[in-house]
Order: sequence, then structure tokens, then C-alpha cells
Amino acid sequence: MIRVGIVGGTGYTGVELLRILALHSGVEVAVVTSRADAGLRVDALYPSLRGYINAVFSTPDIETLDQCDVVFFATPNGTAMQMAEQLLARGIKIIDLSADFRLKDVQEWSRWYGMEHACPDLISDAVYGLPELNREAIKSAQLIACPGCYPTAVQLGFLPLLENNLINVDHLIADVKSGVSGAGRKAELAALMSETGESFKAYAVNGHRHLPEIAQGLALVAGQPVSLTFVPHLTPMIRGIHATLYGQLSGAKLDDIQALFEQRYQNEVFVDVLPQGSHPDTRNVRGSNQCQISIHQPQGGQTLVVLSVIDNLVKGAAGQAVQNMNLMFGLQEDAGLKVIALYP
Amino acid sequence: MIRVGIVGGTGYTGVELLRILALHSGVEVAVVTSRADAGLRVDALYPSLRGYINAVFSTPDIETLDQCDVVFFATPNGTAMQMAEQLLARGIKIIDLSADFRLKDVQEWSRWYGMEHACPDLISDAVYGLPELNREAIKSAQLIACPGCYPTAVQLGFLPLLENNLINVDHLIADVKSGVSGAGRKAELAALMSETGESFKAYAVNGHRHLPEIAQGLALVAGQPVSLTFVPHLTPMIRGIHATLYGQLSGAKLDDIQALFEQRYQNEVFVDVLPQGSHPDTRNVRGSNQCQISIHQPQGGQTLVVLSVIDNLVKGAAGQAVQNMNLMFGLQEDAGLKVIALYP
Amino acid sequence: MIRVGIVGGTGYTGVELLRILALHSGVEVAVVTSRADAGLRVDALYPSLRGYINAVFSTPDIETLDQCDVVFFATPNGTAMQMAEQLLARGIKIIDLSADFRLKDVQEWSRWYGMEHACPDLISDAVYGLPELNREAIKSAQLIACPGCYPTAVQLGFLPLLENNLINVDHLIADVKSGVSGAGRKAELAALMSETGESFKAYAVNGHRHLPEIAQGLALVAGQPVSLTFVPHLTPMIRGIHATLYGQLSGAKLDDIQALFEQRYQNEVFVDVLPQGSHPDTRNVRGSNQCQISIHQPQGGQTLVVLSVIDNLVKGAAGQAVQNMNLMFGLQEDAGLKVIALYP
Amino acid sequence: MIRVGIVGGTGYTGVELLRILALHSGVEVAVVTSRADAGLRVDALYPSLRGYINAVFSTPDIETLDQCDVVFFATPNGTAMQMAEQLLARGIKIIDLSADFRLKDVQEWSRWYGMEHACPDLISDAVYGLPELNREAIKSAQLIACPGCYPTAVQLGFLPLLENNLINVDHLIADVKSGVSGAGRKAELAALMSETGESFKAYAVNGHRHLPEIAQGLALVAGQPVSLTFVPHLTPMIRGIHATLYGQLSGAKLDDIQALFEQRYQNEVFVDVLPQGSHPDTRNVRGSNQCQISIHQPQGGQTLVVLSVIDNLVKGAAGQAVQNMNLMFGLQEDAGLKVIALYP
Repeated sequence: MIRVGIVGGTGYTGVELLRILALHSGVEVAVVTSRADAGLRVDALYPSLRGYINAVFSTPDIETLDQCDVVFFATPNGTAMQMAEQLLARGIKIIDLSADFRLKDVQEWSRWYGMEHACPDLISDAVYGLPELNREAIKSAQLIACPGCYPTAVQLGFLPLLENNLINVDHLIADVKSGVSGAGRKAELAALMSETGESFKAYAVNGHRHLPEIAQGLALVAGQPVSLTFVPHLTPMIRGIHATLYGQLSGAKLDDIQALFEQRYQNEVFVDVLPQGSHPDTRNVRGSNQCQISIHQPQGGQTLVVLSVIDNLVKGAAGQAVQNMNLMFGLQEDAGLKVIALYP
Repeated sequence: MIRVGIVGGTGYTGVELLRILALHSGVEVAVVTSRADAGLRVDALYPSLRGYINAVFSTPDIETLDQCDVVFFATPNGTAMQMAEQLLARGIKIIDLSADFRLKDVQEWSRWYGMEHACPDLISDAVYGLPELNREAIKSAQLIACPGCYPTAVQLGFLPLLENNLINVDHLIADVKSGVSGAGRKAELAALMSETGESFKAYAVNGHRHLPEIAQGLALVAGQPVSLTFVPHLTPMIRGIHATLYGQLSGAKLDDIQALFEQRYQNEVFVDVLPQGSHPDTRNVRGSNQCQISIHQPQGGQTLVVLSVIDNLVKGAAGQAVQNMNLMFGLQEDAGLKVIALYP
Repeated sequence: MIRVGIVGGTGYTGVELLRILALHSGVEVAVVTSRADAGLRVDALYPSLRGYINAVFSTPDIETLDQCDVVFFATPNGTAMQMAEQLLARGIKIIDLSADFRLKDVQEWSRWYGMEHACPDLISDAVYGLPELNREAIKSAQLIACPGCYPTAVQLGFLPLLENNLINVDHLIADVKSGVSGAGRKAELAALMSETGESFKAYAVNGHRHLPEIAQGLALVAGQPVSLTFVPHLTPMIRGIHATLYGQLSGAKLDDIQALFEQRYQNEVFVDVLPQGSHPDTRNVRGSNQCQISIHQPQGGQTLVVLSVIDNLVKGAAGQAVQNMNLMFGLQEDAGLKVIALYP
Repeated sequence: MIRVGIVGGTGYTGVELLRILALHSGVEVAVVTSRADAGLRVDALYPSLRGYINAVFSTPDIETLDQCDVVFFATPNGTAMQMAEQLLARGIKIIDLSADFRLKDVQEWSRWYGMEHACPDLISDAVYGLPELNREAIKSAQLIACPGCYPTAVQLGFLPLLENNLINVDHLIADVKSGVSGAGRKAELAALMSETGESFKAYAVNGHRHLPEIAQGLALVAGQPVSLTFVPHLTPMIRGIHATLYGQLSGAKLDDIQALFEQRYQNEVFVDVLPQGSHPDTRNVRGSNQCQISIHQPQGGQTLVVLSVIDNLVKGAAGQAVQNMNLMFGLQEDAGLKVIALYP
């Protein structure tokens, strides 16, 4: 049994980790921390977990976490980097769902996140936890930087195209729509149902923190810098991300691209290329760790359109984190993640 | 492996059965029928099932179903009763999610459902599949009449009170709210998102088909006829039922009633009595087979208020059907049903 | 032109007042206050008002408000009572949308609202602003206590029954469902879309602040104390209240009751009794000042069911406030309120 | 008083016309037709109109419509063209909200709409009813082809750019999101709340009927053919369209473009260019005839992003139709259209 700790168990990624790990046969949830709710039973805060979790929130300190084999950070940005060195020094693996270790360029990180990095030396050790790209590195990693939700959906959609130089890297567009749970469990006016229900808007068009993360990932695959326009939108639903990706083709045919996508992901249990002509729907991955993708070439023109959907809290956060854990500990990659989407 | 057939696999209860049974380790889904979609892969209609179900829709005929150990009917009312005798004659157990065998009085059935009953002789053999009430009878049943969604939520809330004569049976009120998936997967104007979204209404106040079913169940428990006012409402969400039940107390104290509920359901894995002062929320049972209940006595007055929530498609339909199957075949009662609600 | 001031212009009732008053031909919006947003253009905070409102938020002080003929308080409870005396002394009429002057019993007020009342002497002068009940008193009032949203829907549904002694006052039940805008524009976890969307729950079953207000109003009409069980619920939509009211009949026939309701409200422009057999739907009053009501007697039994719907922000708040203003200033009662509900 | 007829009064654009026209002081709604509901009071079908409309549905025939000055067609495609010649011959003006007269190329029309055109000779007489583009022609038109909802949002966003040759016409992208009311009031599985609620998807990526309409309009303005990739999406809300438009800049600066947009629309009462840095939100135009637009140049790069929102049923259909009527009859352009969006 792997002994697991969750730091920051009261946010949506924290409770989603608990939903998955509580039914994971190879895992024991040993520690769940919450500074604000220490002493409270976890299922008092989350009645959906009644009968499945006996844990009590504890304060986040190294001594308590010392009993764990792996610690997940489901914390706001800037927390994991404060505790990472001590935990790693004790041989405890870390899976960070926040952004602390996602960007390789520490100065760019500081610009976007507005703080000094607490342990820049660890950044190069951190493995970017996108298994479809970094599976082998993940297996032996001590510190995982889990991708953001937008970056997961966008990268999985662009990957086969960039690996094979099929589109012009100077004109990438990612028009992405997210459910409101992506904003987290925070008391903010903008996330009220009266503000977000029955309405649709773009936000942060001039620069969202996931932009450098996506650009870094795409450049790595393309072998050169890419020019990406990334426009995130808020859509009036709770879970789900839908990425609509646009690229300028350099000549390939749609049939070949479809075949290429199918081949690229044929051994990936969590990436599913739909038949030609399909339109993935976020409901079909709600609650599951799947990414569903389809490819279109409207009017046979030069612009290729890739549609990529995930559940932002699962493949975009907690599910992918558990997928990483499975790889790090030599478990079946889909252990605890065989969950069918909740439709309708 | 139990070989399972599903007749009517294209409605919401059908696809929900598939979601549950595809991951049930003791079951093989052998047949899924749909007259309209025969020949089509099930996962072509329901992409959420891709990777989990290989079945192809077949036409519903006895010969095909003959290979099954048990057949679920997730059909409109009036279908199961046409095939029941032949299946039972071949030793195939039946779990009917429709209303064909729910009412013991065949004339009342005809009045409410507007048709002649095709096999009235079977009605007395049918066991009403509410495990919390009829567990032993279910174990040896050949034919199960699965309760409706409203009746499940209402009966579980009233049960302990009526078993112990704690409320006046002449003034029962059930004010119940359902998500729109209860209307089924049918192309009807009234179920459009533009009609039901962002709006709330009561319907069928003068008589809903679940009224005689609930009244029959409550009378059986009370040992006398009951007078019930049942007002169903449509609430703008997809899944979930919230029953607000009102009864006039004949003297018992809230603390004692709370203790009584806890004791009554202490061995029930799917009924969860919340601590005093709680308000169950349908989100906390979404996708799970749980019923969560709380009891209130506002202002210490004579009126007791019971709040009871379920997911209408799980404990109110497919989940309860699988719970029945588990009992009929001697499996763990919660096999395939250990699913945590999807929150948020 | 009536010069209007709005204290607390940044909540949902405030912006709803602005939506209505900006198009009211007899009114000029002279002052809109907001301590937090003073100096900001109103339409910078509320782009829906662009082109209709030129006002700038100012700090709420008596001198600024002195130019007004009437001041609306769309503030949290406890604010209006701090400024009421000074404004009244200057001859400025007050329409308070908060709860400060709703309860006649100041000690009961303190119990429910958790503070001392700042000007108990004014309470008896305040007129409860339900025009269908108090029209004449409103016309000459200086200080209006606008009813709460729940109390409006519930009282309009029970009124004709209690005025005519048709139901037993000892067993009144009000099972009421509200959209989430009723919680106001406040950054609170419980009002996040991820918390309230796709979910339904009761809350405050043991005692909601609107209970004493409703009970006071019903007792006044009935001429005796009433026993009311009031259970509020939160439904996943933004606007709308649906009250389902239950009373025990003392003998009257449904046809007579229907006729009585129609007669009682025949001259009320904002109360609409639907034909027998109807089910009012909150969408049909969304954005309008209407209350739609229907009456049912399920199975011809003893329990009468009244369904009453309003838009909580209009007839339940800002619309009713303007209706009061129209009466106070001798305008057409529906001036500025001829708005058709937004369907779909 | 202008006597108005509405053919097809039972769809969402029909009832939206009624909502607007019932309060339009210069108009009398003389005829509302519905073959299926002839003889029924309009407000029996639409209780939101109770008290505002006394009309009864009649069958759609020329004799009845003969009393009208103008007839609106809120019908499925293929109906208006059957009656247009006869009505025009009698001097009755026509405002067609369907697609019958939108495309100038009749063969292209037949390809996209799958039928022969019934009166191709009228096509050249029809004026495309986008007032911001064709105001003068509209004033003297007898037959108006009202733009589709997507085309309205997209064209208003691209117009100033194309009129001034600021973007490359070979790489236009319109990623557009619509609420579900755009699918109309039809009993279709895909429009059920259980299918569309809490989910997001693209559809018709390979070719939507609004594509040729948009391309025709943009080409006219640009003075040359344009290459447009148009991807429509369905978003889980009832009303609203959000267009996210991408163009490759040929050198202009953002400040200049902002100024250009402001100048282009400064006299347009229904097009509102937001301050730099803004993100329009569909809720801010819900129920109103406004289009709100903002312009962004992310990272100062070559890709310009225009955000354009409308209410699909108002500026995208019924409101724009009334705007056209006002122009045709010499009324104030905003008569009957001074409506503030319903927020929240």
C-alpha cells in the first residue's frame, strides 16, 4: 500500500484526489491537510465522501507528512515550493498540482506568478507530468510538475502535428473554453452562479498564466519557438474543457493526419481519437480521465481544426496526478482511474 | 460471470445501467437491444462508453435474450409485460425498471397507465425491489419491479416513521423536486433546455403515476391506508431528486426520531442518515447509489420535516436495479456500486 | 421628475432598481451610492447599463442624498435604520428593501437579526409595502418596509384563503424554492456556481429570517396567530421563486376558491390567477413584476395546494419597491413596470 | 399605427417578436399565425404574455394577412418564399427572419438549404437587413432578409477591419459560441437539457449554413473574396452568442484600431465598443438589442482578437427585425427596443 498525503485537501482538486484515491486499491490516504479546517473530519466538509474516507484534516507540517510515500500538493501556487526540499530530502516523492515547477525559466515564472521562486535549483529536476509525452521520465521522477488544465487539453491536441511538422508554428491559435470549477473553491464574486450562470465570456485575453506553459511545451515538441494566441473563455458549466485549436497546414491530407493521430495515441489508454467527422462533447469525459480528440479540415482549406476535450478536474488535474503516481510506483497506469464519464 | 441483457439500451436508465455494469466485475453485458439502433455499436451512440463496452445493439427478441441469466428492462411502460412470461419460462430472471409490475392492484394500474395489463397473473409474483424493505424476498425473486425514482426517495424518508406509528397517516405531504433526466431521453418540447433551464415549476399536481405506487408502499408499512399529497416539481438540473416530506407528529421527540432513523438504517450501505441539523444536497449523491436523509422539527412544532435525496438515475433507477441483481445472485450488495458522488 | 437616490447600488437589488428606474419616464436617478466604488461610473461596474445611466457612485452621506425626493435602501440589514431619521426629518421619503422595518415587534427583530434596532420609534410609522394588502396606507407613507422575496410569494398565495377563513391556520406549510440571486452579490463559497449549479437543497429549515415576517403578515390577515412551517430551498437557477403552499381546507370547493382568487385579484395588475389546472412556471415572470398563481385540490382531498411564482429581484424586491414609489407619488401603479418576462 | 402580422408565431423568434412588439407604441399586432395552434389564444401557449397580447393564433393565409402593413416571417426556411410574391403584390412589406432571401447566389442557396428556391427573381430585390451596413437601402426596401444570429455577431466584429483593409482576408477565423435557443423550439433529442446542459461542444465544423452568408457579407465589405474558417459551438445557456474573431494584422496599431472601431460605431445606438482591455459578457446584452465589442492584440503580436456578443434572439433575430421595421416605416430606430439587459 502506498501511503499518500494530500496537502490542501479543501479545494476542488483536493476533493477530486480524494474521490479517486479513496477507491484506488493500491493506496492508503494517510494524511489530508488543511490549515483552516484542522481537526474536522474530511467527510464533514465533503458529505459526498461519507463512508469512503475516515481521515481528519491535519495541519500541514513535515513531521506529519513524513509517514507518506508520496505527497500531492493541491495548493495555491507558492506553497509546494516551500516544502519540496524537506520532503524530497526524506525520500518522499512529490506530485505538485500547482504551477510551482511547471516553467523551466525561473525568471519567466516569477514574472507570471508575481513572486520569487523559493527553490529554483529543484526546477530542473522536476518532470513535467504529461505521461503521453514524458512517460519514461515520470517513472523515475521524484518531483512531478502536473500540467495545468488548459495546457493538457491544448498540448494533447497539437502534439502529433508539431512532432511531425505538419503545421506552421508561427500561427497557432488555441480558443479554449472552461467550466467554472477551474477557478477553484474560492469565495470570489466573479465565480458566483449569478455572475457566471447563463453567460459566456472570454477573459485574460492579453495574457493568461497558462500561456507560457503551453508555449514551452509546444516549443519543446516542435524543436523551435512557437507563436501561440491563447484565448481562454468561461462557459456556464461546472466541469469540462473544450479546446478548439487552429493551425495552418503545410500540405498534409486530412486522412493522413487522422491516421497519424490514431497511431500516435493508439497505446494511450486516456487519449481517444474519435472517428472522422466527430465532435467531442465535454459531457462524454465528465468525471473520467479521458481526453477525446477529433480533427477537421473545413472546406478542405488550409486551416486545420483540432477539437480536444477533457474534464479539467480529472485529466486536467487530479486524474492526471494519479496517473503520474501510478507510473512512479510501477502500478498499472489506469489503476483507480477506470471510471466512465457521467452521462447525462 | 452473470450474463446480462438490457432491453431498451438507449434511454437514460439504459445507458446508466451500462455505465455501472461495464465496471461490475461479476457481470458480462451480453445483449443490449434497441429496435431503432440495431446494428450500431453502443459506443457510437454513447461515446462516454468508448473503451468500456464492445456491444452492438440488437433487436429485442427472446432468442437473443435466451443466453442471458438476467434481463433488465429499461423500456417505456408496457414493454416488459409483453416479454416477461416467455423469459421467466426459460428460467431467466427479470429486473423491470419500468412500472409494469409495481402496482399490485391491476385495475388501478390500468387506470393510471391507460392500457390493459398483458400478464396480470405475474403481478403477485413480482417483488417490489426496494432492498431496504424487501431484502429477503428480493433474494429469491424471479421478477423484480424496481421502484420509481420519486417513490424511492419518498419511501426511504417516511419508512421509519410509519413503521413506528410516529406520524399521522392522514396528513402526509411529499413535496418533491426532480432533475430533468427523469423525463427520459425523448424528443419532447417540454424537456428542451430552453424550456426547463433557468426555470422551476410544479407539474401533474392533480395526479402523478408515482402517487399510487408511493401510497401502496406507505400503506403496506403503516398497516393501514394513508392519505398522501404528492406534488412533483421540475428543477433546472440534470440529475437528482430532493424530497421534502411533512408529517404531523404524534408526540415523539426529535432526538428519539434521529436515533430511530440511525438505527433503522445502520446496516444499510446505501442509506445514510446525516447528523442533526444537516441539509442533504443532491450534488453529494450525484452518480452514486446513496440516499442521504436528515430530519428536522422546525420551531419544535408538531410538523416533522424529512429531507431525502437520491440520484434519480442511480438509486432511483439503474443503481437500485443492480443492487437488486446483486441480491438475487448472491453477490456483495454493493458490487459494482462503490462509486463516490461527483462533486463539484 | 422625481429625484431618486439609491443607497447600496452595487448589489443585485440595486442594479435591478437601476434597470427599472433608468427607463421610468417619471424619474431621474440623481444619486447612487457605494462606499467601496465611490468615484467609479455605475456602468463601468455594470456594462448592461451602458447608454442608460450616466451616474457615478458616490459615498452615502446625508448631504448628497438631500437633493432626493425619495431614497431606496438596497443595503444589507442594519444600514437603513442608521440614516432613516435624518432623511425623514428632511422630508425625504424612504423605501427600504432591507429588513430593518419589516417586523413590528422590535425584540423579535433583534433576536432574528442579531443587533439592536437603531430607531425603534420609527417601526410603527413604517408601512409594510405589499400593495395588494396595504395600498391606501402606502399612498401616504413616508417610510416603506418592502417585503422580502419569500414573504411576497407566500403571502400573495395565502391571502385570499386567510381573509375568508378557508383553511386551518394551525397547519400551514410553505415549501419555497429560490434562485441563487436571492443570496445577493456577496463573495461567499456557498453561492459559487460550482457549489449551487446542478444541485438542489433545503437550507435554514430550523428557522429562516423570513419566517417571522411571513407569520406576522398572515396573522394580521387571519386575525389570529398562525402556525406556519416554512422550508426554503435553493434551486440551480439565477432568478425566480416558486412557493408551493399547503393548507387544510375547512370545506370550501375548489371552484369557489378559484372564483374567490380571481375576484380578489381582478384589479391587481401584478397578480395573475391562472386558469384551473395550470402550473405557473418561474420563467414566465422572469424579469417582470408579475406574480402568477394557481390553485389545486389533489384527488379532491382536504389538502389545498397553492402555487405562486415571482421573480425574486422584481416583485420580490426592486419591482415592488418601484410599485410602492409609484403609489407614494401618485403615479400610475405600473409606471416603469410594464415589462414582459424574458422567455425563453 | 402600423398593423403587423407574424407568420410562425410559436417559435422562439416569434414569441420574442411578440415580447418586443407588444410594448412598441407605434405598432398593433393584428395577426399571429400558427397552423398547428390556430384558434388558441397566444397567451395560452405563452403565459409570459398574459395581459399584454389578446391575439388568437390564425392559419397563415394571404387574406388574413392582407390587413397588415408589414409581415414578419418567423418560420422555418422555405416558408417565406412561398408567400412573398403575393404579399408584396398587395403592397405589404416583408421582414423575413428565416434564410430564404439571405444569399444572393440562388444556386449556392439551394446547395446549403437543400431545396429549389420558389421565387429566385425576388432575391435581388431583397435587402440584407443589417442596419449598420445597409441603413439607407433598408429604409426604402419592401423585402428584408434579416441576418442570421451568427452572421450578425461575426460581421459587426469584422466590419471596421475589412472596410479599412487592416487584416489579411485569407486567414479569417470565427470561433463562435451560441446558447441553445438558437436551435429553435423544436422537439429534438439534441436540444434536451439532459443533452446540452453542463456540456460544451462544437458542431457542424465541416460546414454550417451561416458560413456562406457570413462569407458573402464579408466579401462585399472587403471588396474581394475572403477565406473564413467558421466553427460554431453550443454552450450550456439559453440566450447569447459570443464570437471570438481572429485576423492577421497587416501593420495597424491597437490604439488606432480601437479608435477606428469607436468612430465607426459612434452613431450606432445598438453597437457599443467597450474600453480597451474589456471582455464583453453575453449576460450584459441578454434580452437587449445591443452588440458589445472589444478588441485585443495579445502579446502585441500579429494576431488581432475581436470579441463580439449579442443576444441571439434579439440583435440576432427579433430585435434586429424590429430595428429594420422602424427604419422602413420612418420611426425612431430604437422604438420599442429601449430595453436594458437582464442582469443577473
